[in-house]
Amino acid sequence: MQTPSVPPRDPGVRKADALAALATPAIDAWVATASAAGGAHLVPLSLAWVHDRVVIALAAASVTAANLTASGRARLDVGPTRDVVMIDVELERAVVVDDDDELAASYAGQADWDPRGTPGYVFLVLRPVRVQAWREANEIPGRTLMRGGAWLA
Amino acid sequence: MQTPSVPPRDPGVRKADALAALATPAIDAWVATASAAGGAHLVPLSLAWVHDRVVIALAAASVTAANLTASGRARLDVGPTRDVVMIDVELERAVVVDDDDELAASYAGQADWDPRGTPGYVFLVLRPVRVQAWREANEIPGRTLMRGGAWLA
Repeated sequence: MQTPSVPPRDPGVRKADALAALATPAIDAWVATASAAGGAHLVPLSLAWVHDRVVIALAAASVTAANLTASGRARLDVGPTRDVVMIDVELERAVVVDDDDELAASYAGQADWDPRGTPGYVFLVLRPVRVQAWREANEIPGRTLMRGGAWLA
Repeated sequence: MQTPSVPPRDPGVRKADALAALATPAIDAWVATASAAGGAHLVPLSLAWVHDRVVIALAAASVTAANLTASGRARLDVGPTRDVVMIDVELERAVVVDDDDELAASYAGQADWDPRGTPGYVFLVLRPVRVQAWREANEIPGRTLMRGGAWLA
């Protein structure tokens, strides 16, 4: 909420920056999920951006996987607090990490680890439905780049 | 999940590091909340650490304030994805930003803005009940520093 030091980016630049952030090697996301009982959960997880989907790898028994499987939804951020790329996602599919070599190779190629062989781990393939990107207060207007799964710019 | 490059910190160091992070000027937190309908929300917000409480300032009409007021709970992180300070909090009180000058002065002294005079804004005073801190995979054991509102070390 400090006084912005640079002018706001236009939508095309924000989209390009968001896609570049998603494709960054060894990038982490903050993944927020909710339980049926109304508890909020938050963890950092490595992600990969594969065929326009966010892919995370985690223990099927983790709180995040349980919440995502039950609710079908999550909200995740890529980037620091003053260069936000916020993505609301829907769970498209879950697959045991050793059961999809093409997906595993793509994930391992971007993330900084390869979950294959880790017992109990799954890939969750997440479809973005809304994407918002902002840096400072002057970028709050125009922050929505995708709505209903469709890019606006 | 990369191979850790440094040995794990002991609990006392982790607690000191966590308290230092909370007291950092102009620090932001990732604040995750859940709606009654099971939707996860996540936003970055400036915080202040005042009398062992996390204080945030936000619009009373925001999703985060509505979720926190209804559920009484949030989960928030201070620090980057590989230097995590994760704090589960309970809502202790909410106060209109112009109604508590001592709190407002403390908040403005640490955060990089002063919300006084902003219509519709409230301070939410949040009591930590669990604190966890970790950097890399080798710090997952021993990550819990506070449980039930009490520091363990």
